[in-house]
Amino acid sequence: MIKKPANGMRDILPKEMELRTKVLNIVRETYRSFGFTEMETPCVESLENLSSKQGGENEKLIFKIMKRGDKLQIADGKTENDLADLGLRYDLTLPLSRYFSNHENELKKPFKALQIGPVWRAERPQKGRFRQFYQCDIDIFGDASNLCETELILATSTAVSKIGFKNFVIRVNDRRILKALAEKTGIEESRYDELFIALDKLDKIGEEGVLNELLQMGITEENAKSFLNLPKNLEDLTMVDPAVVSNLKEIMDTVNEVKNGDFTLEFDPTLVRGMGYYTGPIFEIAAPEFGSSIGGGGRYDEMVGKFLGQSVPAVGFSIGFERIISILLEKEFAFESDREKIVFLLEKNLSAEKKSNALKEAMELRKEGKIVLIEQMIKNKKFQKTQLEDAGYKDIREIYEKPLE
Amino acid sequence: MIKKPANGMRDILPKEMELRTKVLNIVRETYRSFGFTEMETPCVESLENLSSKQGGENEKLIFKIMKRGDKLQIADGKTENDLADLGLRYDLTLPLSRYFSNHENELKKPFKALQIGPVWRAERPQKGRFRQFYQCDIDIFGDASNLCETELILATSTAVSKIGFKNFVIRVNDRRILKALAEKTGIEESRYDELFIALDKLDKIGEEGVLNELLQMGITEENAKSFLNLPKNLEDLTMVDPAVVSNLKEIMDTVNEVKNGDFTLEFDPTLVRGMGYYTGPIFEIAAPEFGSSIGGGGRYDEMVGKFLGQSVPAVGFSIGFERIISILLEKEFAFESDREKIVFLLEKNLSAEKKSNALKEAMELRKEGKIVLIEQMIKNKKFQKTQLEDAGYKDIREIYEKPLE
Repeated sequence: MIKKPANGMRDILPKEMELRTKVLNIVRETYRSFGFTEMETPCVESLENLSSKQGGENEKLIFKIMKRGDKLQIADGKTENDLADLGLRYDLTLPLSRYFSNHENELKKPFKALQIGPVWRAERPQKGRFRQFYQCDIDIFGDASNLCETELILATSTAVSKIGFKNFVIRVNDRRILKALAEKTGIEESRYDELFIALDKLDKIGEEGVLNELLQMGITEENAKSFLNLPKNLEDLTMVDPAVVSNLKEIMDTVNEVKNGDFTLEFDPTLVRGMGYYTGPIFEIAAPEFGSSIGGGGRYDEMVGKFLGQSVPAVGFSIGFERIISILLEKEFAFESDREKIVFLLEKNLSAEKKSNALKEAMELRKEGKIVLIEQMIKNKKFQKTQLEDAGYKDIREIYEKPLE
Repeated sequence: MIKKPANGMRDILPKEMELRTKVLNIVRETYRSFGFTEMETPCVESLENLSSKQGGENEKLIFKIMKRGDKLQIADGKTENDLADLGLRYDLTLPLSRYFSNHENELKKPFKALQIGPVWRAERPQKGRFRQFYQCDIDIFGDASNLCETELILATSTAVSKIGFKNFVIRVNDRRILKALAEKTGIEESRYDELFIALDKLDKIGEEGVLNELLQMGITEENAKSFLNLPKNLEDLTMVDPAVVSNLKEIMDTVNEVKNGDFTLEFDPTLVRGMGYYTGPIFEIAAPEFGSSIGGGGRYDEMVGKFLGQSVPAVGFSIGFERIISILLEKEFAFESDREKIVFLLEKNLSAEKKSNALKEAMELRKEGKIVLIEQMIKNKKFQKTQLEDAGYKDIREIYEKPLE
C-alpha cells in the first residue's frame, strides 16, 4: 500500500485545515451579506464540455476518466478521447455556465452565485503548486450594468480585508481597451490573444523581453513600441470608445467612494488576465508584499451563449484561495480561537459512575459552546500534556477515582 | 455543448445548498466541541490503494483516471488497469488510514479526525442515489478503549439531534458476537462474510428468505435455524467471550446514562454493517419514520496496519449526509433564517451620487450582519418583487433619483 497521496496532490493537516475552514467561513459569510447564494456542480464534467476551447491552456491539463463497462473498448489506434468520456473540472467557471444554462428557469435573475470547491490540473508538480486546489468564485449572470463589477470588487475587497490583508491594490483594465491598443500593432485580430499573452509577461521578462516577443510575432519595431507606450491614465485613452472608458471610470469612482478596507484601485493598461473569454472590464488583486496575485476576474458575456444559444451577461471574481492560505501560513498567522478548549484526562480504571459523571459534565460544557476533549490518562503524562498544549488545550483537568490529597 | 451534468450526478440548487451548508455547520461545530479536528485528503487516490480489498463491492465501482503523457500506451491486449493509475475515492475511510500512516509523526495521538467531502461510485443511476455524494465521518485512531465508541455515539447523536431528528434508534452489535454465532453454522470462517451478507438482508427478505440463502450456502437446516435463533438480550449470549459482551454493555450503559437527545439504544444481533473490515463493536442509526439508516460505523482495528505494518486501533462513525438532506427536503424542513434580508432596488438611471449613497448604506447594514442585495429596478416590478420574495427578501426598499410624492 502507498502511504503518500497521489503525485502532485497533498494531504491537509489539522492546523492548516482549521485556518482554511475559518477563511472559508469569512468568505462565505461576507459574500452572503452581498446577496450571493452558494451552489454546486459535480467535480466531474463531460469531456466534451471541458474540451470546448473555453479553458485555454487548461484543456491540456485535464485528468480524464475512463469509460466504464462495455463502453470501454481498448485496441490499437484508439485515442485518449475514445477511451474517456468524463474529466475532472479545471475551473469553476465553465461548469457554472453549464449549470446556469441547465437551470435557467429555476434560478432567480440576476443570478448571484457563490461557488467553492476543488479543481484539478495535471501540471508538472512544482513547489507551491498542486494538482488539486480549491477555487472560490463569485459570479453574476443576467445583468449587463456595471453595478455588477462594482459589487464584485466591493464584496471581494471586503472579504480579503476581513481575512486580514491590508494595503492591497486592485488593478483594473478592460479587454476592449487592450483590443483598441492592439489595433496599433497592425496584426490581425485572430492573433490578439497571442499578443496579450506576450504583454502579460511584462512583470516577468520586462519591456525589452515583451518587445522581443512582439518583433518575433512579425510586428514592426515602430508598431511594437507604439503599442508598448501604453497610456498611464484613463483620460489619455483617446483611441478607445469613450463609453468603455467612462464605464471603467464609473466603476473606479464608485468603488473609491463606497469602499471599506485598506486598499487602492489602479488603472493598469498592462493587465491582461490569461483567459481568452473575457469581453469587458477585468481586475486583479495584487498583494505587493507577497509578490503575486491573490485574485482576479472580469466580464465574460459570451460563455453562457455557447450552451444556451443566446448570450447572457456574466461577470465574475475569483479569490486565490490557496495563495491566501499559503501567505497566512508563511506569516504564521492565527485567528484567535473562538471557543474555550478544555481536556478531561481520565484515570485509567475509573469506575463507571465517575466516568459517567465526567462525561456528563463534558456534555454540559459542550452545550455552553466549549470544546471538551476527553482522553485516557497515559503513563507518560508529561508527553501527553505537551501534545495537548500544542493542540491548544491549556485547561487540562485530571480526573481520578479518589480525589488526590 | 451539454447542459446536463454528467450521467448520474447532479447540480445543487441554491435552496438545497443553503440547507446543506447549515447542516454541515451544525455537524462541524458539534464534532469540534467533542475535540475532533478536521482534515482532508485529495479526492483522487492511487488505484493500487483503492483496489486493496478494503473497499468490498465498492472496488467494482471506481471511476478510473487515465495515465497521462508518455505513460499512457494504448494497444491491443492492454487492460483497464494498464491505462489507469488513479481513481476517485469511493469512501473516506481508506484515504484516512493512508493519511494517518503518512503523517503518523505529525499527528496528536489519539487522533480524532473529522472528514467531510465528496466520494464517487459508478453505480447504475437510480432514484435518490447519485454517483457523486458527500460523506461526513468521524474517526478515532490510537485508542483501544471503549471510551471511543461511547464518545462517537454521544457526538453523532448530539449532532443528529441538533439537526432536528427525534425518536431515533441507535442499534449496536459486535462483529465478534456475529462470529461466535456463525460458528454454529458449521461453515468455514472464510465464508463468514457471505453469511453476514445474507443475514444483513433480514429487513428486506425476511427470516424465510435468509434461511433459504443459508441452505443454498450448504448449511444444514438445523444449523441455519439455530443460527437464526439469535438471542435478543446481551445476557443470553452465553457462547460469546464475556469480555466482548461486557464491553458492549458498558458502552450502552454509559451512553444511556450520559446522553442528551431523544433517542434509544438497542442491542441488535442481526446488525451486520456491510464492510468486511470491522473487528469489534458496530452501530447504526435508524430513523424509523423514514425507513432507512442515517448513519453507522464501528471498530476496524486492522486497516491502518495494511499501510503501517503495525496495527493501530481505529473506530469511526459516518453520518448519512445525503440521506439526512433528502429527508429534510421531503419534510420541507427549513432552518430559521439567521440574518435579516434586505433589497435595495435602484431606479435605472440613478445619479452617481445617489447610487454611491445607496451602496454606502448597504455596506453599513452588511457590517451589522444583515444581507443586503442591490439590484437594478426592472420594468416588470411585480415580477421582480415576486422573485425577491421567493428568495426570502421581505424588506424591499426602492431607491429613486427624486423622492416619490
